[in-house]
Amino acid sequence: MITHISPAGSMDLLSQLEVERLKKTAASDLYQLYRNCTLAVLNSGSHTDNSKELLDKYKSFDVNVVRRERGIKLELSNAPEHAFVDGEIIKGIQEHLFSVLRDIVYVNMHLADNQRLNLTNASHITNLVFGILRNAGALTPGIEPNLVVCWGGHSINAIEYQYTREVGNELGLREMNICTGCGPGAMEGPMKGTAIGHAKQRYYEQRYLGLTEPSIIAAEPPNPIVNELVIMPDIEKRLEAFVRMGHGIVIFPGGAGTAEELLYILGIMMHPDNADQPLPIVLTGPKESEQYFRSIDRFIGDTLGEAAQKHYQIVVDDPAKVAQIMKQSMADVRQHRKDTGDAYSFNWSLKIEPEFQLPFDPTHDNMASLDLHLNQRPENLAAALRQAFSGIVAGNVKAEGIREIERHGPFILDGDVDLMKKMDKLLKDFVEQDRMKLPGGTAYEPCYQIKTIS
Amino acid sequence: MITHISPAGSMDLLSQLEVERLKKTAASDLYQLYRNCTLAVLNSGSHTDNSKELLDKYKSFDVNVVRRERGIKLELSNAPEHAFVDGEIIKGIQEHLFSVLRDIVYVNMHLADNQRLNLTNASHITNLVFGILRNAGALTPGIEPNLVVCWGGHSINAIEYQYTREVGNELGLREMNICTGCGPGAMEGPMKGTAIGHAKQRYYEQRYLGLTEPSIIAAEPPNPIVNELVIMPDIEKRLEAFVRMGHGIVIFPGGAGTAEELLYILGIMMHPDNADQPLPIVLTGPKESEQYFRSIDRFIGDTLGEAAQKHYQIVVDDPAKVAQIMKQSMADVRQHRKDTGDAYSFNWSLKIEPEFQLPFDPTHDNMASLDLHLNQRPENLAAALRQAFSGIVAGNVKAEGIREIERHGPFILDGDVDLMKKMDKLLKDFVEQDRMKLPGGTAYEPCYQIKTIS
Amino acid sequence: MITHISPAGSMDLLSQLEVERLKKTAASDLYQLYRNCTLAVLNSGSHTDNSKELLDKYKSFDVNVVRRERGIKLELSNAPEHAFVDGEIIKGIQEHLFSVLRDIVYVNMHLADNQRLNLTNASHITNLVFGILRNAGALTPGIEPNLVVCWGGHSINAIEYQYTREVGNELGLREMNICTGCGPGAMEGPMKGTAIGHAKQRYYEQRYLGLTEPSIIAAEPPNPIVNELVIMPDIEKRLEAFVRMGHGIVIFPGGAGTAEELLYILGIMMHPDNADQPLPIVLTGPKESEQYFRSIDRFIGDTLGEAAQKHYQIVVDDPAKVAQIMKQSMADVRQHRKDTGDAYSFNWSLKIEPEFQLPFDPTHDNMASLDLHLNQRPENLAAALRQAFSGIVAGNVKAEGIREIERHGPFILDGDVDLMKKMDKLLKDFVEQDRMKLPGGTAYEPCYQIKTIS
Amino acid sequence: MITHISPAGSMDLLSQLEVERLKKTAASDLYQLYRNCTLAVLNSGSHTDNSKELLDKYKSFDVNVVRRERGIKLELSNAPEHAFVDGEIIKGIQEHLFSVLRDIVYVNMHLADNQRLNLTNASHITNLVFGILRNAGALTPGIEPNLVVCWGGHSINAIEYQYTREVGNELGLREMNICTGCGPGAMEGPMKGTAIGHAKQRYYEQRYLGLTEPSIIAAEPPNPIVNELVIMPDIEKRLEAFVRMGHGIVIFPGGAGTAEELLYILGIMMHPDNADQPLPIVLTGPKESEQYFRSIDRFIGDTLGEAAQKHYQIVVDDPAKVAQIMKQSMADVRQHRKDTGDAYSFNWSLKIEPEFQLPFDPTHDNMASLDLHLNQRPENLAAALRQAFSGIVAGNVKAEGIREIERHGPFILDGDVDLMKKMDKLLKDFVEQDRMKLPGGTAYEPCYQIKTIS
Repeated sequence: MITHISPAGSMDLLSQLEVERLKKTAASDLYQLYRNCTLAVLNSGSHTDNSKELLDKYKSFDVNVVRRERGIKLELSNAPEHAFVDGEIIKGIQEHLFSVLRDIVYVNMHLADNQRLNLTNASHITNLVFGILRNAGALTPGIEPNLVVCWGGHSINAIEYQYTREVGNELGLREMNICTGCGPGAMEGPMKGTAIGHAKQRYYEQRYLGLTEPSIIAAEPPNPIVNELVIMPDIEKRLEAFVRMGHGIVIFPGGAGTAEELLYILGIMMHPDNADQPLPIVLTGPKESEQYFRSIDRFIGDTLGEAAQKHYQIVVDDPAKVAQIMKQSMADVRQHRKDTGDAYSFNWSLKIEPEFQLPFDPTHDNMASLDLHLNQRPENLAAALRQAFSGIVAGNVKAEGIREIERHGPFILDGDVDLMKKMDKLLKDFVEQDRMKLPGGTAYEPCYQIKTIS
Repeated sequence: MITHISPAGSMDLLSQLEVERLKKTAASDLYQLYRNCTLAVLNSGSHTDNSKELLDKYKSFDVNVVRRERGIKLELSNAPEHAFVDGEIIKGIQEHLFSVLRDIVYVNMHLADNQRLNLTNASHITNLVFGILRNAGALTPGIEPNLVVCWGGHSINAIEYQYTREVGNELGLREMNICTGCGPGAMEGPMKGTAIGHAKQRYYEQRYLGLTEPSIIAAEPPNPIVNELVIMPDIEKRLEAFVRMGHGIVIFPGGAGTAEELLYILGIMMHPDNADQPLPIVLTGPKESEQYFRSIDRFIGDTLGEAAQKHYQIVVDDPAKVAQIMKQSMADVRQHRKDTGDAYSFNWSLKIEPEFQLPFDPTHDNMASLDLHLNQRPENLAAALRQAFSGIVAGNVKAEGIREIERHGPFILDGDVDLMKKMDKLLKDFVEQDRMKLPGGTAYEPCYQIKTIS
Repeated sequence: MITHISPAGSMDLLSQLEVERLKKTAASDLYQLYRNCTLAVLNSGSHTDNSKELLDKYKSFDVNVVRRERGIKLELSNAPEHAFVDGEIIKGIQEHLFSVLRDIVYVNMHLADNQRLNLTNASHITNLVFGILRNAGALTPGIEPNLVVCWGGHSINAIEYQYTREVGNELGLREMNICTGCGPGAMEGPMKGTAIGHAKQRYYEQRYLGLTEPSIIAAEPPNPIVNELVIMPDIEKRLEAFVRMGHGIVIFPGGAGTAEELLYILGIMMHPDNADQPLPIVLTGPKESEQYFRSIDRFIGDTLGEAAQKHYQIVVDDPAKVAQIMKQSMADVRQHRKDTGDAYSFNWSLKIEPEFQLPFDPTHDNMASLDLHLNQRPENLAAALRQAFSGIVAGNVKAEGIREIERHGPFILDGDVDLMKKMDKLLKDFVEQDRMKLPGGTAYEPCYQIKTIS
Repeated sequence: MITHISPAGSMDLLSQLEVERLKKTAASDLYQLYRNCTLAVLNSGSHTDNSKELLDKYKSFDVNVVRRERGIKLELSNAPEHAFVDGEIIKGIQEHLFSVLRDIVYVNMHLADNQRLNLTNASHITNLVFGILRNAGALTPGIEPNLVVCWGGHSINAIEYQYTREVGNELGLREMNICTGCGPGAMEGPMKGTAIGHAKQRYYEQRYLGLTEPSIIAAEPPNPIVNELVIMPDIEKRLEAFVRMGHGIVIFPGGAGTAEELLYILGIMMHPDNADQPLPIVLTGPKESEQYFRSIDRFIGDTLGEAAQKHYQIVVDDPAKVAQIMKQSMADVRQHRKDTGDAYSFNWSLKIEPEFQLPFDPTHDNMASLDLHLNQRPENLAAALRQAFSGIVAGNVKAEGIREIERHGPFILDGDVDLMKKMDKLLKDFVEQDRMKLPGGTAYEPCYQIKTIS
């Protein structure tokens, strides 16, 4: 079955050269990337948690960009049915299709061709992140700081889900906007709640910003409520986008991905250059989840120390308080940007070290050689731990990672016995709490093994 | 504590004469009416189900209209706190405050003074209903038929509530708008669901229309999501507004009020002049509520007969189907209006007989003398039954009705033994199913007695 | 030829009763009034200066309001061709058609029926003026004071016309809005100039407000640029609307009508209660017209005295300065309204005496008995002179006035010899300067005679 | 004097790298280019016709891009005063400042760095033109064909100027949009007229598109009414932008520049591949200018022949007819784009040969070696003649060209005696009709010499 989709949102004109390069040809990696992201977006709402499954299920799916008198159209073959209502594509998904197109074109053509850009240079990476976000229309200069990043697991229980909605509602009532990593669970709940809060306040500048990247989008497809979707080229640029755009961060319960995010931001905030950065970080959940935060907090205390713990606060079972903390911190954020001449919409002055910025490729070798020892500067340890969790996420849900595990068995993680024990404990807690469960329902089979222990 | 509220929404300029008449003076009934409606709107979100309780609780509440350089402001004294977030009034409630002002001013000044208007004349009543809605900006001529009226109880269980949200979501995904009687339960759920569906479709002409009236507004305060609120002068004009504005009707489980609404629309649809009116009516609920619809359907069949039953269909546990029926019927509604030259936004040609149009005052005498016999034209029986249920609602939740019951004991209903038995059965079912429970939690004490039986 | 016109702008829904009363019937004065105003609006751009001519030319013109599924439509028979471009009505004129409908309906139905309204009571008249403007959407509470009323002749020369455009351009560049009496010449030029200035400033809250009344609209049909048109019921309410809405007044060269307007505002500003009212009044024209202002100024000085002269300033050949004066005065206007709690959009506190407010009917008797003596309080003299000039305007261009003159010969004006001489001089100057010329080109034949002199 | 200018319009965020490269440094050509274009835009409204004069007059002018919390700001030193009203920059000019920034950044950074782009390849040039226009937001896919390009002289007389306004008014009344080369005269008049026509029609999608390039912008600064300004990198890309964006072309009287434009479009339209292209071309002026068109028409007939003449029609003194021709042709344009799948907003399928596309550098050598002989394919002759006139424009008004002439004396043009005579005649006609006069008032001194003749 073939469907034609008209543009919606920001991307509707492509040059002849651009259309040419997106064509399906034997050799085209770009086409594969584009096609898979498109498929992921169409899969929104369906709850598979495994990119490979999705790709296998829709092998016959195809997308073709065609030029028309009003710009371009997408020609979809054999698209997933649940993207449509009575045969009409859901408008939110339609916009996402063109967000994918926009970002793939931008990253792969405008920038890939650029000879001056050096992607191992910190300043160039940051300029690229900026360029992608600006091209996506995600940097709106007129707006006061009000963007709260929400992180947390895709697989949370009903009580936690309801709690994330309530936090969203309180944020929305205070006219805060929201940014998550797309996907279900703690990425969807706060958006829905915020949407209701915004409706009560007649707040029409509402932003439900989703930041994703090609290797995760299939596992965590954007909910159609997301009204700005940006596909960053990889996980590190996605994380950088989160922290340079966000004016505050709320962390809900989650699994390995959430741990990765927390370690990322702590590693950055502990950098001496960032000592003055006002960035409120709140870990929060319903009272039933209190234990979860205690164990995370203990792990951070035991590994990165008090210096790390002082960067966040834990709020249990108080959605209004979470929102108040965020709202009240905005004045500091605003003042700091004014004082330093930095943009409200993009935090240029936040220092991010190369180990947080350069892509980490979770091969078995790279995973095995991570420097997981307590005896190092805490920023460095945070960086290494971040990479370890990043690899585990890849092994769990990313197509490439799953293939690697199928081929070579679990990743081996090696390091201090003491540290390894703590890490093992944390991961086991995640498994027990079902935070690493696949929605399909099969029991979680770890994609990693801790060498020192096993 | 005094708060000043700036105008929001449609009403921001009053003439000197208008401000004058709203002033609080010993003799002013108008001020009392205005003050009580204002208080009710501020009480949104708090769940008392009893007007009298509310009025007793906020005896010191006061409102004063003052003229300012930018128009007018409201000066509130001792307003309920939950209308505010961190000291700022919720914008949706702020708009409702000015909707109340707008409608009270319009009805009581512009029209009350009008010597040509005769409020026992059917055409004049309809013109008044039209005038109020037009003045409220609720009749938008450019819009295609898409307004679904949702009726149902304020006191429904969690499964039913979730179901109303899902129906709302499906309506929203099909870009239908929604109109309810305000208040919690089946009046709130569909609105929230529709709001999410609209967000997914980027539908920006969203209407969450609430129609209420002074004697019910305190018991069923509008949720702040309601983005158009109209206060009709009495229950009959409110019902007329529902059926002249709505292009389709969905009925969820409910109690006496819902029964009143169903009897009202059936009595009208059974009128021979309305034989050609295309108005889809769907009774729906989750599978757990199927029994409820069976007993309602039986009551209708036993009293009004098959001729009444053919006007509605019952859909169990299928939100998408409910929305599809509504969506598909819109083409017929549209065609019928074009054929008859009638307005999309207001169904002038629907015939409404005086017994449905003239206010019914539920005194003990009036209730006792209702003509509750099977041996009459079904439209007439529908009218009498409608009045009976209307009286029961008044005795349950309206301040005036509650006072009457406190003073004179329960209403006595008299009529055919057979009919009375059926009615008693239905009402007892409502009580058993907790549909007439007061949120406060105390057991329901009937405000009526069936003479023939007791 | 029959054309159907869909609604544009603010009026698109009428009740059955309203449509009923606008129907063409033998007895309907209201239909005649409505039909004639409609014809006048359609005649926009064609330059006849004589209402009677227009009515005679389009005897077969007819208008009929019909109800349709999207609201109402107008059915026009034999409408003037120049209202159309390639068969399509000009949108600006289309809006004006519905402004006429809106105001006729409002004034004649809502208010005429109102038993409490007493139109010889000053407060009631002012409330009516307010009600008409509010219903027309002309009172927008959010806007800071910035509305400049421009008065001046319909028959000015090319240099003066160009000058009015330049003043308009300078006002537009300063984001001032504009209000005139509609019609050509000094009422059109400033609007076009302001439109260009607004375009340069990307000013999108632009208001080109035209205030007219049934007896003048045919002679001075609104230019289609007018984006808010209000038809006041008579000349006095139109003048009151000008001075209660305007935040400053610019007076260009003109004839009897302009003199009427100047005398009106001076008579009001000289009232002791208005001593604190900040209302900038500037008389201005190109250097070629300097003489004109000298003779007006002399006439005012000789009759009303220095106390009157201090209320205005004369600016010759300096458009930027005119605009600067207006712009700078806005701060005072704003402060005064804040201090007195008066509305920005409507100057409630301006005192207007009954002789300026009550309609003056320019019959031969009323004209002959005007109290034209120097020996009285200047406000009273201003009032009497205003009425004299008002009568002359009627005799020149209004259908009813022209008929009166045809029937009974010129009006006789009687009074102090000295005053009469000054008046005669001024009127002769107007004739010499072609300010009372009819565009048709025939020489001006005075509609008045000054008794004492002739 | 230093002024800070906030962003308006489309450009408000620059990356650190972008700001870096625009910095004023000894070696920076880019800064000079940027600074000069900025100065030209600020000079809008002042009528010098000579780029060099402007640059000499404001030697101390300086511009600096600074980053701020809300994006960026421009810091101007010693800017021309007439860009300001009472100390505030005119909004239209403010937008133009940021259009300059946007296009300079885009062309010089994004594209100059692009290694894949080959600017001698026709397809790459066209893709670059497209890229610039898309980045400028000038390609809006939703819009039906309605963009009329108006060409004509900057130095026309008052009657011609008024005529261009009337044509504009008629275009505006038909809801056509307009595109010119910026600057005064025939580039300003139609815009102002169209703005008035749009105002009458309440047409809010109005586009007053100005296309310019760095070497001409100083001589023909954009009028502030221009609401979309695009700075193309050179004259050939500017011409390509005109003909790929425009849906019809109106040519008013003008001098060498207008001749260049006419020859350009005729050369293209005569290409066999463009035989089916529907592109209405109308030469028009008031009856006083009829002779002008006769001599142009004769020159075309004598040199390019009837095959060229059939591509245009001449309309004398009939503004409404010009607009009707344009309006009626839009249906053909629309159909052709639909049939060929080409974009409404950009005519990809128009064939443009390299000699029209590659930059022509008017050095004395290049001018002398133009192939000016009748005995060649007419498209080629049109191309050579286009280049000759292009050189004359440069010698007249462009800073670089004027310097060349000052240094080396007039350009020498050589060719067929017969052709040279016709050309000489045409140019002399231009001089006689004052079409090559500099506004400063000094007599025109030719920058060229025709060899064969002199």
